[in-house]
Amino acid sequence: MIKTDILIIGAGPTGLFAVFEAGLLKLKCHLIDALPQPGGQCSEIYPKKPIYDIPAYPEILAGDLTHKLMEQCKQFEPGFTLGERAETIEKQEDGSFIVTTNKGTQHQAPVVAIAGGLGSFEPRKPIIENLASFEDNGVEYIIKEPEFYRDKKVVIAGGGDSALDWSIYLSDIASEVTLIHRRSEFRGHLDSVEKVQELKNAGKINLITPAEVVGVEGNGKVEAIVVKQGDETFTKPCDHFVPLFGLSPKLGPIANWGLEIEKNAIKVNNALDYQTNIPGIYAIGDVNTYPGKLKLILCGFHEATLMCQSAYQIINPGKRYVLKYTTVSGVDGFDGTRKEAPKAVVKAID
Amino acid sequence: MIKTDILIIGAGPTGLFAVFEAGLLKLKCHLIDALPQPGGQCSEIYPKKPIYDIPAYPEILAGDLTHKLMEQCKQFEPGFTLGERAETIEKQEDGSFIVTTNKGTQHQAPVVAIAGGLGSFEPRKPIIENLASFEDNGVEYIIKEPEFYRDKKVVIAGGGDSALDWSIYLSDIASEVTLIHRRSEFRGHLDSVEKVQELKNAGKINLITPAEVVGVEGNGKVEAIVVKQGDETFTKPCDHFVPLFGLSPKLGPIANWGLEIEKNAIKVNNALDYQTNIPGIYAIGDVNTYPGKLKLILCGFHEATLMCQSAYQIINPGKRYVLKYTTVSGVDGFDGTRKEAPKAVVKAID
Ligand SMILES: Cc1cc2nc3c(=O)[nH]c(=O)nc-3n(C[C@H](O)[C@H](O)[C@H](O)COP(=O)(O)OP(=O)(O)OC[C@H]3O[C@@H](n4cnc5c(N)ncnc54)[C@H](O)[C@@H]3O)c2cc1C
Ligand SMILES: Cc1cc2nc3c(=O)[nH]c(=O)nc-3n(C[C@H](O)[C@H](O)[C@H](O)COP(=O)(O)OP(=O)(O)OC[C@H]3O[C@@H](n4cnc5c(N)ncnc54)[C@H](O)[C@@H]3O)c2cc1C
Repeated sequence: MIKTDILIIGAGPTGLFAVFEAGLLKLKCHLIDALPQPGGQCSEIYPKKPIYDIPAYPEILAGDLTHKLMEQCKQFEPGFTLGERAETIEKQEDGSFIVTTNKGTQHQAPVVAIAGGLGSFEPRKPIIENLASFEDNGVEYIIKEPEFYRDKKVVIAGGGDSALDWSIYLSDIASEVTLIHRRSEFRGHLDSVEKVQELKNAGKINLITPAEVVGVEGNGKVEAIVVKQGDETFTKPCDHFVPLFGLSPKLGPIANWGLEIEKNAIKVNNALDYQTNIPGIYAIGDVNTYPGKLKLILCGFHEATLMCQSAYQIINPGKRYVLKYTTVSGVDGFDGTRKEAPKAVVKAID
Repeated sequence: MIKTDILIIGAGPTGLFAVFEAGLLKLKCHLIDALPQPGGQCSEIYPKKPIYDIPAYPEILAGDLTHKLMEQCKQFEPGFTLGERAETIEKQEDGSFIVTTNKGTQHQAPVVAIAGGLGSFEPRKPIIENLASFEDNGVEYIIKEPEFYRDKKVVIAGGGDSALDWSIYLSDIASEVTLIHRRSEFRGHLDSVEKVQELKNAGKINLITPAEVVGVEGNGKVEAIVVKQGDETFTKPCDHFVPLFGLSPKLGPIANWGLEIEKNAIKVNNALDYQTNIPGIYAIGDVNTYPGKLKLILCGFHEATLMCQSAYQIINPGKRYVLKYTTVSGVDGFDGTRKEAPKAVVKAID
């Protein structure tokens, strides 16, 4: 059982900034995310694109935003359960909650903050009859650990940035990379398209286009895929088949937690602390709704900050908290580090 | 008469970010500030100190934050009335407001956003009998334009960063700089203290400590000051006397605008749009109050953003606004510039 002060569901920008704000209040956080990496939409959908409305950043790449937020909260040593989906929540007699993931990992905390964005990112899967039976036995929809593919024969399917970028990345690791797409045209960053062309010319990526994977074969684990190209159908031996057709967010299990839902989002008390109808459960960032709500990153930052103040009261009943400026009081990390403004000197001039 | 869409009172971080958010909605802003430069508390009180809780900035100097915010809103060409205090507001028959400053400058807008922080920064003045009669005739409490002091004899009084830094700066411009402080010890950045010591040793700054300015003399304009040092009192000829004893914020005239005030702050509807009890007048940032309010910069950013959406409805009644992501739609400045994410290509690989 993982125990923490604030259990955050969703490691997007809102969840990550909540870790920092909680840390200032000496509260520890643990984050659960269905994705294998933190950053939410920013790292999954548009890591290489610029955002122009993060305050005081005239321009920042979404991926860099994630890195900055990770760096900012590092001092507070957040725990992560990645690649797992929060599935059930149970209120305990002591008032705390136990949240269990689809892989059975259990987490306990007095406060739960749902920072689930548009929902848990779930892969779009191709329609292939027996595909499900090979999941985690050679069929993966998300690449969590590239080293897993070392010296393996990998088939990637897809025509966007993920398919392009992982083909490039794995061409150095896998013994063979085959990229299959139902058109000859790919859609992505110019750099990526050109790099794949180059690696194809150098014989480091096999390209099969326009073509579709229509079957998977193997005894318990993937041994080959069946490819349909024009009127021809053929079998191609491989160890892994990785369809990268994008991820789409689904509010999913959270919709059944007894929370008030409106237009696929969780209603909260925006006049106070972004708490839901269940005391002790908050919803912050894209996942919540209230009159005038804007699904913007900067709003999630504010909501996370107010949420932490309220959570502090639940965790430390009766204790009064006086807001301190980071500039004045510095920041004391749980890792023993301290950030601190240089003090003014008092010095005679003679 | 200066006309604009949103008239912002206070050019601190909240007011500056409001310019950017308004610009995204094609609304133009004009800012009034009592200080000669934008940045509010950040530039007036602690420009060289680091802030640690600006989201995605593990550390940023308050002065740099101001620069970044100015850079971000530059595309939207804000107007500025600096060094003047907003004094009166009058509602017009057409629903707009006219705001007049202490210097008589008039501004008209359908929406007023008060981003006045802790109030208009007013100088702390030394108690010298006839001082007021020399104001703007050789006595200044804020240095607006250093060139004003070229080849003049300047006396600066004070023992903090402002007194130190302006003495250093003017030592290159004025014909003579004298720094007077009631103690021998100065309180400021080590660099500044050391630099003043160096300039004093080189004969470029006169230092009179511990001493006090007790009188000002002159016929219509400053011709000399009277200094008391120990038991001695003497006259020192000069063209300017600049007491830099710090600025303290005062809510001031705004307190009499008919707004609901609570604990020296303006009550707003935080459940919707940060509007005050007077429709069309909003209060954002440190200047407002509501249940759970935190006087933090990041909260001002959120409040400014929601305020702009609501102001849009007042200025464009009945028009529906659909939120656009800056990443997806780019940013079109009023100055003709455009920021835009590089588009994905669709390209064949063969
Ligand atoms: C193309 C594009 C451009 C954009 N441009 C801008 C812009 O310019 N400015 C701006 O402010 N915003 C922009 N946005 C929106 C911005 O990305 C979101 O507002 C932001 O990501 C929301 O952050 P969040 O942390 O609330 O949620 P998310 O980033 O959505 O993160 C939520 C995380 O929670 C996880 N999760 C959800 N449910 C579960 C569960 N049950 N178990 C485990 N994990 C779960 C998800 O997997 C996800 O990683 C853009 C979005 C897109 C798609
Ligand atoms: C030493 C110190 C350290 C701080 N550290 C932090 C920190 O670490 N993190 C954090 O988030 N915050 C911190 N703060 C607080 C932060 O600076 C404020 O929250 C922020 O400046 C508020 O921004 P604002 O734009 O709302 O108001 P302000 O910055 O106060 O700006 C308001 C402006 O309005 C002007 N004004 C007011 N009334 C009038 C009028 N009638 N006419 C003309 N002009 C007027 C004022 O002159 C002023 O320039 C700190 C503050 C101080 C003093």
